[in-house]
Amino acid sequence: MTGDEDAARHREKMARRKAVQDAEVAAKTVEKGLLMVHTGAGKGKSTAAFGLALRMLGRGRRVGVVQFIKGAWSTGERGLLEAYAMLEWHSMGEGFTWETQDRARDIAACRRAWEQARRMMAEPGLGLLVLDELCIALRYDYLPLDEVLAGLAARPAGLHVVVTGRNAPQPLLDAADTVTEMKPVKHHFAAGVKAQEGIEF
Amino acid sequence: MTGDEDAARHREKMARRKAVQDAEVAAKTVEKGLLMVHTGAGKGKSTAAFGLALRMLGRGRRVGVVQFIKGAWSTGERGLLEAYAMLEWHSMGEGFTWETQDRARDIAACRRAWEQARRMMAEPGLGLLVLDELCIALRYDYLPLDEVLAGLAARPAGLHVVVTGRNAPQPLLDAADTVTEMKPVKHHFAAGVKAQEGIEF
Repeated sequence: MTGDEDAARHREKMARRKAVQDAEVAAKTVEKGLLMVHTGAGKGKSTAAFGLALRMLGRGRRVGVVQFIKGAWSTGERGLLEAYAMLEWHSMGEGFTWETQDRARDIAACRRAWEQARRMMAEPGLGLLVLDELCIALRYDYLPLDEVLAGLAARPAGLHVVVTGRNAPQPLLDAADTVTEMKPVKHHFAAGVKAQEGIEF
Repeated sequence: MTGDEDAARHREKMARRKAVQDAEVAAKTVEKGLLMVHTGAGKGKSTAAFGLALRMLGRGRRVGVVQFIKGAWSTGERGLLEAYAMLEWHSMGEGFTWETQDRARDIAACRRAWEQARRMMAEPGLGLLVLDELCIALRYDYLPLDEVLAGLAARPAGLHVVVTGRNAPQPLLDAADTVTEMKPVKHHFAAGVKAQEGIEF
């Protein structure tokens, strides 16, 4: 086979791929606020939500963040985001972690976070709401799943929501438009590497 | 069981969890520049890399981005990042896609992108280098895998690198410190939802 034949074959293959691609794009016509879930034990759940928040801010839309667990986003990231006047950030008290060791206090913090999320969902003009580590609050039964699902379902039609956290409950996955599992194929912590600045925090 | 017993049991459980957590953190002592791979067919590979770039910029470190495929990051994101003087962005020509349908041109674009990546890896003081969609260039054999692996292995010891793209080749996974597979559990495109501003672009 000559180089010309090879190039011609490649051109043909890519033209076919482009035709498939164009047809797929043309077939998608629905516009709606998405319920997106980032779950799984791998890295990147909150980081991808953070990237999405910035993309939406870059489009000039308002973004809200409610943080259900302390420390999932670094203060560095928060500072970067808060440079945008269009961002509303709410970290409920200390949030909860295994550091608090106080169930009643954690439940109260989650309740405040959820009430804040409901208020923000009712605000007109919000483009994206990030409910960071909400899955953890659901997993510990700190919030009733039915109430959360009903609240999400009742949001304005155009509002995109990202929910992050391991162990997303199945009914939340069923309700979601998009679910990505961040799957840890390999992790440097297992090789004794510590958390490093600019990567983990 | 009384509420007090329940609270006590919770406190005990969380204290054990904290002890395990503390021991794990103490056992990790290695500091090194990580080779991280975001692969899989799900969403969030480039978005999480984008979030990581911002986290590193938020820590006052320099970040480089080399884009191997056109359009993977929106111009909105690029604008946001370029507001930081510490960012160096290189999108090689048009990059390649099935739009070009010209294999020789695509190979030349990938070659230029890789040479740029090599130059940036040699720069002192870079904290993070994002090689966005490099996996696609490798998959199409637009760059020799051995050369790329050798170049990555020869980088400065403290430099973190993120490589994104579907179908990461196994030898790249073997060389990586951390691999996350973004796995599409469910995707709104399948339900006829089109790409929307602030989410896909």
